[in-house]
Amino acid sequence: MCRWLAYSGSPIRLEELLLKRDRSLIDQSLHSRLGATTTNGDGFGVGWYDDGDTPRLYRSVHPAWNDRNLRELAAGISSHLFLAHIRASTGTAIQETNAHPFRYGRWLWMHNGLIREFPRLRRELVLAVDESLFPSIEGTTDSETMFYLALTFGLESDPVGAVEKMVGFVEETGRRHGIEHPIQMTIGVADGRSIYAFRYSSEGESRSLYFSTRMDSLKSLYPESEELAGLSDETRVVLSEPLGDLEGAWNEVPESHVGIIQPGDDELRPFTPHL
Amino acid sequence: MCRWLAYSGSPIRLEELLLKRDRSLIDQSLHSRLGATTTNGDGFGVGWYDDGDTPRLYRSVHPAWNDRNLRELAAGISSHLFLAHIRASTGTAIQETNAHPFRYGRWLWMHNGLIREFPRLRRELVLAVDESLFPSIEGTTDSETMFYLALTFGLESDPVGAVEKMVGFVEETGRRHGIEHPIQMTIGVADGRSIYAFRYSSEGESRSLYFSTRMDSLKSLYPESEELAGLSDETRVVLSEPLGDLEGAWNEVPESHVGIIQPGDDELRPFTPHL
Amino acid sequence: MCRWLAYSGSPIRLEELLLKRDRSLIDQSLHSRLGATTTNGDGFGVGWYDDGDTPRLYRSVHPAWNDRNLRELAAGISSHLFLAHIRASTGTAIQETNAHPFRYGRWLWMHNGLIREFPRLRRELVLAVDESLFPSIEGTTDSETMFYLALTFGLESDPVGAVEKMVGFVEETGRRHGIEHPIQMTIGVADGRSIYAFRYSSEGESRSLYFSTRMDSLKSLYPESEELAGLSDETRVVLSEPLGDLEGAWNEVPESHVGIIQPGDDELRPFTPHL
Amino acid sequence: MCRWLAYSGSPIRLEELLLKRDRSLIDQSLHSRLGATTTNGDGFGVGWYDDGDTPRLYRSVHPAWNDRNLRELAAGISSHLFLAHIRASTGTAIQETNAHPFRYGRWLWMHNGLIREFPRLRRELVLAVDESLFPSIEGTTDSETMFYLALTFGLESDPVGAVEKMVGFVEETGRRHGIEHPIQMTIGVADGRSIYAFRYSSEGESRSLYFSTRMDSLKSLYPESEELAGLSDETRVVLSEPLGDLEGAWNEVPESHVGIIQPGDDELRPFTPHL
Repeated sequence: MCRWLAYSGSPIRLEELLLKRDRSLIDQSLHSRLGATTTNGDGFGVGWYDDGDTPRLYRSVHPAWNDRNLRELAAGISSHLFLAHIRASTGTAIQETNAHPFRYGRWLWMHNGLIREFPRLRRELVLAVDESLFPSIEGTTDSETMFYLALTFGLESDPVGAVEKMVGFVEETGRRHGIEHPIQMTIGVADGRSIYAFRYSSEGESRSLYFSTRMDSLKSLYPESEELAGLSDETRVVLSEPLGDLEGAWNEVPESHVGIIQPGDDELRPFTPHL
Repeated sequence: MCRWLAYSGSPIRLEELLLKRDRSLIDQSLHSRLGATTTNGDGFGVGWYDDGDTPRLYRSVHPAWNDRNLRELAAGISSHLFLAHIRASTGTAIQETNAHPFRYGRWLWMHNGLIREFPRLRRELVLAVDESLFPSIEGTTDSETMFYLALTFGLESDPVGAVEKMVGFVEETGRRHGIEHPIQMTIGVADGRSIYAFRYSSEGESRSLYFSTRMDSLKSLYPESEELAGLSDETRVVLSEPLGDLEGAWNEVPESHVGIIQPGDDELRPFTPHL
Repeated sequence: MCRWLAYSGSPIRLEELLLKRDRSLIDQSLHSRLGATTTNGDGFGVGWYDDGDTPRLYRSVHPAWNDRNLRELAAGISSHLFLAHIRASTGTAIQETNAHPFRYGRWLWMHNGLIREFPRLRRELVLAVDESLFPSIEGTTDSETMFYLALTFGLESDPVGAVEKMVGFVEETGRRHGIEHPIQMTIGVADGRSIYAFRYSSEGESRSLYFSTRMDSLKSLYPESEELAGLSDETRVVLSEPLGDLEGAWNEVPESHVGIIQPGDDELRPFTPHL
Repeated sequence: MCRWLAYSGSPIRLEELLLKRDRSLIDQSLHSRLGATTTNGDGFGVGWYDDGDTPRLYRSVHPAWNDRNLRELAAGISSHLFLAHIRASTGTAIQETNAHPFRYGRWLWMHNGLIREFPRLRRELVLAVDESLFPSIEGTTDSETMFYLALTFGLESDPVGAVEKMVGFVEETGRRHGIEHPIQMTIGVADGRSIYAFRYSSEGESRSLYFSTRMDSLKSLYPESEELAGLSDETRVVLSEPLGDLEGAWNEVPESHVGIIQPGDDELRPFTPHL
């Protein structure tokens, strides 16, 4: 399975959460614990926001742990909001256009999980993508198809509602083809201001997903930590598996819920797919 | 523009026509003369038939001239029928799934040219691909879409008729969208037994395409050539630009024609797209 | 750590031992058991002998499990003698010239292990390579340096003696620099006719290495196996970890020994490094 | 032949000089005019200085014109001093460790040209590299060897003197081996503050090299140019072939000279190799 991480808060160098030993996404990918797949070596991607509206992307087909350019960039680039994804392919080709995050305008999208029997459903799902969006599809994954369906269903104006409709549509399509549990997913979406983190699966046994605790609570628990001291109270990380071993640092997102990291109070809401 | 070559005849090592200096496809790609693009460095592919029904493929995103594995394979592999293609992208991503030749069952397909304004037409064209074939589409090029449309229109039972219908359909679709000259193409298709080489464009000014002369005529012209002596009379090469500088070795395929290299007599027929 | 496999015997398609599920080198690389490293995703290589003197090479920086060209080639190529290696880098760059096997003339060389503190020793070791061989060094690994030292010490005329001298030289050089246990290795070497498989480490705790049992014994144990029936009695496999779960199929190479697979009787001899 | 560019001045996005149509290095690489080689598709690299001491590197084996990550980075990264290089290999392997610029500490180095018969001279040249520098050599090119020789001869304290000694040493070594004209080069070197641009060849017919004119002169010539207006008077570009077609914008560096772009007045001095 894939693994991913989304960060929002005080600008930090990407390497802090992507590469540092014993507590980073890529180190984790080499020593998987909770993941269903032994190895996440089928490419990776990073999307980050800087001063412009359009996020930047760096995506590669190499294993993240041995990509020298990633090390250079992650050391040189700081961002207040970024998404990172490490891929373990469930079948589609290893190519940059299939690497997450996917981008459309100011939106980034990444996914862990799968649409079951996607090759059988793909044509029908792709046909439902709005004609004006269709030419922007570059790859062949279920994950990107989900993104363009969500865009079709209004992601840009109502992110949670659009993802609920997308999942409802995929489930209805899958079940019409006799697939019992059509979808398994955690999804990270961002627009440069907020992060939406979804956890859901048709069978009600979704891949894991964690939020970092509020920084102010963490700081009062660990007043001696310099690392925490530098981060704003608004800073949040959401990811597929906890990093490091700081007790009390992580909360699990419950089944069928969506967490929203945003200016002001964060939210945690039930997630209810429907057509 | 891309360039390609198809070979049928006495088994030879691929390197003879792909790599040898001053008279090979890859050497040619470094020193283009007739091509519209200066450089063909956007990946390449080779498909060859051995004793089985399914042709083998080697496709890469590296420039053909600096791919060491290609040198090894082309020195080690002999075949009686192979296709090779060097790509200059007209816009779609550089990835193995966009490299020619494309394969379906025992069929190989490669293309030089383009469908004009393909991003605008893509959805409609892809929708016309038969549902059972759709899941086999792996890339995002106009060339692969043309292949799957031709398969939809019966390539496996009537190759020339199916390509005529495919082109008719693309032209009709393009013109409905206000595109004056929707298609420009030379196409090489093979099934392990025959090679079909098409030259056509909506505007009647198609990319170049050449057939090698009959080997027996060539041999009588050049009785001293050891190289020719070893090749069977049936041996033929068809390609986008002549190789080497042997006078009388090449015949141009006329506009709107298809050449068929097959056991027994070869054929050259008018090519007439229609719906 | 790396893992490798060498095969000698009845010609078989490479895919049988490289790719087939549940009993191949690459499947094993995704589900490591005995290896010291979780993941072998830092490139791979295959070297095989066909009818010529020079072996062919296919080496790639991609993880072996997701390389499509490898699947094509391994399905298309048969050989009576081949070596395959899957890399987990101990620090040097991921590039084709650092992928095993290395080739010199008709010789192939691959290695699992390391020279400890190689960056510190490299200059001195490389200087000891014969001047006429030096220009053939293409990469930067300890493994390739060992190969060229062995060639310098006479690999082509006395393979076991030359490897003993190479190891003796590396140990002497390392100890002079205060390194207690300079070398850890299993090595597979071939010349197209024989395979030499070395197991040694300065500390006497070498990486694992296994030989397949004699085919005639195996066949009498498993008279019902069609797979075994087709293989000649001379057929042997040597590799870093047993494949599959056939009881009695594998013998461990003892510490500080070299096994020789050759026409006629195989040999197993003590391996004694010296200057 | 390779081509390269070095920039110093007002911080600009890398894409301005690397990617913009009709007047950038990469566009130029697709439509070569003065270069000896038709195609520069054997990888590329960019090195840039940001607020730290160590420059950042992005190097790739793909052709620069089709590398999507380069487009993203060049649009996102601004720098006051950067070097870019597009490679056409003269024989050594296409791998990231052979891509320019090379980096050591705060120094960057790139080269267009060659050491003639380098495989024959390599051992002797590499042996002359200081023992403490030797472990930092990662690739196998003549260009990187020249860099480490220059470092050995004192590049960090006397850049021009060290390069003169390096060239003197290479010429002496080459001539001892019977090579008439051992070296052909333009070299760009930077330390984050200054750029040194060398033009030299043993035969006195060096590859071309150009400096941009002083910005204040250019501005007075073209008072209407918005593009020029934004650049500080100190801004300079040095490169292998002029970009764009602004008359009076470029001065050729004379044979056997070195230009120094630095805070305060630039310099142009004779370059005199010696031992």
